[in-house]
Amino acid sequence: MVEETHQKTVKLPHFTKLQKQNPHLDKTKPYPLDGTLVIDFTHVLSGPTCTRMLADAGARVIHIERPTGDDTRHMGPYLKDGSSEYFRICNAGKESIALDLKNDKDHQLVEKMIAKADVVVENFRPGVMARLGLGPEEMTKKHPRLIYASISGFGQYGPMKQDAAYDTVVQALSGIMDATGQPAPKGRPTRVGTSVSDVVAGIMGYSAIMTALYAREKTGKGTTVDISMLDSTLSLMVQDLMTVLGPNFVPERIGNRHPYMYPFDTFMCKDDMIAICCGNNHLWELLCNALGKPEWINEPKFNTNNKREANWEAVKADMEAVLKQDTADNWVQKLDAAGIPVGNVKNVSDTIKMPQVIDRGMIKTLADGNSVLGTPLKYGTWNSYGAQKDSPKLNENGDAIRKEFK
Amino acid sequence: MVEETHQKTVKLPHFTKLQKQNPHLDKTKPYPLDGTLVIDFTHVLSGPTCTRMLADAGARVIHIERPTGDDTRHMGPYLKDGSSEYFRICNAGKESIALDLKNDKDHQLVEKMIAKADVVVENFRPGVMARLGLGPEEMTKKHPRLIYASISGFGQYGPMKQDAAYDTVVQALSGIMDATGQPAPKGRPTRVGTSVSDVVAGIMGYSAIMTALYAREKTGKGTTVDISMLDSTLSLMVQDLMTVLGPNFVPERIGNRHPYMYPFDTFMCKDDMIAICCGNNHLWELLCNALGKPEWINEPKFNTNNKREANWEAVKADMEAVLKQDTADNWVQKLDAAGIPVGNVKNVSDTIKMPQVIDRGMIKTLADGNSVLGTPLKYGTWNSYGAQKDSPKLNENGDAIRKEFK
Repeated sequence: MVEETHQKTVKLPHFTKLQKQNPHLDKTKPYPLDGTLVIDFTHVLSGPTCTRMLADAGARVIHIERPTGDDTRHMGPYLKDGSSEYFRICNAGKESIALDLKNDKDHQLVEKMIAKADVVVENFRPGVMARLGLGPEEMTKKHPRLIYASISGFGQYGPMKQDAAYDTVVQALSGIMDATGQPAPKGRPTRVGTSVSDVVAGIMGYSAIMTALYAREKTGKGTTVDISMLDSTLSLMVQDLMTVLGPNFVPERIGNRHPYMYPFDTFMCKDDMIAICCGNNHLWELLCNALGKPEWINEPKFNTNNKREANWEAVKADMEAVLKQDTADNWVQKLDAAGIPVGNVKNVSDTIKMPQVIDRGMIKTLADGNSVLGTPLKYGTWNSYGAQKDSPKLNENGDAIRKEFK
Repeated sequence: MVEETHQKTVKLPHFTKLQKQNPHLDKTKPYPLDGTLVIDFTHVLSGPTCTRMLADAGARVIHIERPTGDDTRHMGPYLKDGSSEYFRICNAGKESIALDLKNDKDHQLVEKMIAKADVVVENFRPGVMARLGLGPEEMTKKHPRLIYASISGFGQYGPMKQDAAYDTVVQALSGIMDATGQPAPKGRPTRVGTSVSDVVAGIMGYSAIMTALYAREKTGKGTTVDISMLDSTLSLMVQDLMTVLGPNFVPERIGNRHPYMYPFDTFMCKDDMIAICCGNNHLWELLCNALGKPEWINEPKFNTNNKREANWEAVKADMEAVLKQDTADNWVQKLDAAGIPVGNVKNVSDTIKMPQVIDRGMIKTLADGNSVLGTPLKYGTWNSYGAQKDSPKLNENGDAIRKEFK
């Protein structure tokens, strides 16, 4: 672990006070998954993201950890008390039991837990759970109502099923890295600055589990679920897939701008960058006026979207010459007031201070004062605050769970 | 629309033949959402992504279009027959009826359709459906079992609820753009090269609808659902959120490498880029041997992960000096054989030719020969091929639907 002593610190806003004012974040509402039991064999990121969503929806999630704990307990960033925020953000709201799956007694306990479970989730390499006698086919045959979800890099079948999957490798293979960044030859393929392949696979896992639970209510049938990080990441690539599957063109990397509309791009102001999206002549006219350049409206080089797109470098240079005369914040205020779609390019430490983000409870403060990501799934009828317990200490619920399932 | 005449063309592989060999893609299996009726008021991308997932799971999705058709019918890329691949990839498997929601007769028809529906999905700006007399509160009050999902840029409540949301603006505000790209001051915030905010909001919409359908089976209660593109995109930012919420540091953009492990990055070979992920000393030793540099294993500058991370620029330069002696394909083969997590940085036109992607049906060929994205949600019990019908022509099912719901 590299020490992070040079970094700028950020002061968090007072989430709790603002959240209290919002009736949509009523912590006392019933949860949509009340009474649902999930046995969670996951570790690190894709699997825990899926089971965190289940916990946020009110399922009881029992996280089975190896005796040394989930790997992320030993990864930073750390709080002052030595606890890992990586582990916390992925596991808040879950219970923990430490088990050795190769030990007979622990194995028997796990079998009893699965017998009572609605859902099992695991993200080992394909075959690991089967070798432990806990494989998806075996368990769903034994328990026909069980939903057994496996999340892996490349899926439970296919020639690459055994390959090690790291987010960066999956991003590379999926096409998302080649599509991100400035155009060739100067610009290079660029990794999305978050583990998007892991997280999206977790969300897809949640989607499939909920689909399977609904189908079980209708038919009585359980099922295996097989989610791959590569499939999930490829599913994000709709625009480039249109280009390949429609006219059969190879898509090209084009930086921050839109392929067919201009100005629809990021722009530098005096101090910082903003995004401006004007997809039609009406918005272009509003923009020209707001920039104090009404003469651009009828400028022959710029007066249709096709011309602006063809001359986008000239449009951008002319716009930035004006934008550089004032700050990003001032321009966002001015352009927003003029009805133009605009936004600051924010660091996430500023995103979480946005009143819109706070009001929607997207960062929530747990009972013990620690903060984690909130839930984006908001319901009128159901609890939309998400799980309210901190992440468990290793084996925190071990004794109680051993008694309950003995 | 800009003409795309300069682009390289790609030859698609023969999907159908390979898919036929795969028992997991049995087109005759029952669908998990058989018998579910969805009334789809969505347009362009976030909403249609959600209802496309519902159609792929076997729901009957009736797409209500304005008399001039969904905007994406008039956006490229186009096939030779003039149809839009943008519309197709978002709407395959749905039915279409063209309606004027301000016309009394059409309005009455829509009310009858909603009365029989399980799910309504819309992605207008908040308030538009209410002004049409079809708002979420009104409809769920009238039909207590209805699931009514709204997808928007910023959500149905909060100070920004009325702001126009374009993917690029949401990416800017969410922190994902600031996190993506080469480090400051040379590198700039970079847009993810796909409309990730739209697509992830669509997937979150699907997740919430399935959760609500399951809860309805248990309790008889319907609900409104409120999904925001900003909430959804922020949910991807787990690593940066850990940094902000744990030690309260402002996260910094670091290019393609991992924050705590090295070599875990992209590297240039003779012709192209590859990703290599070695997170521990064991993998580092395998890598040194595979590169023909066993002397690096005990090199004092490189012999622990912390040292490699601190000296990452030197490690990268030394590695690239070796990697540039051969092609990306050859290195991937060699390093993979040596047990090192590695992958080519692929353009999506190459991704879709991977046997792993073809075998899993991630690109599917519809009955009329057109190709679209497959479904990443794979089940043992349920149909995992997804919808099998092409996207509908405008109002293709209008007469039949008018008769059915009259």
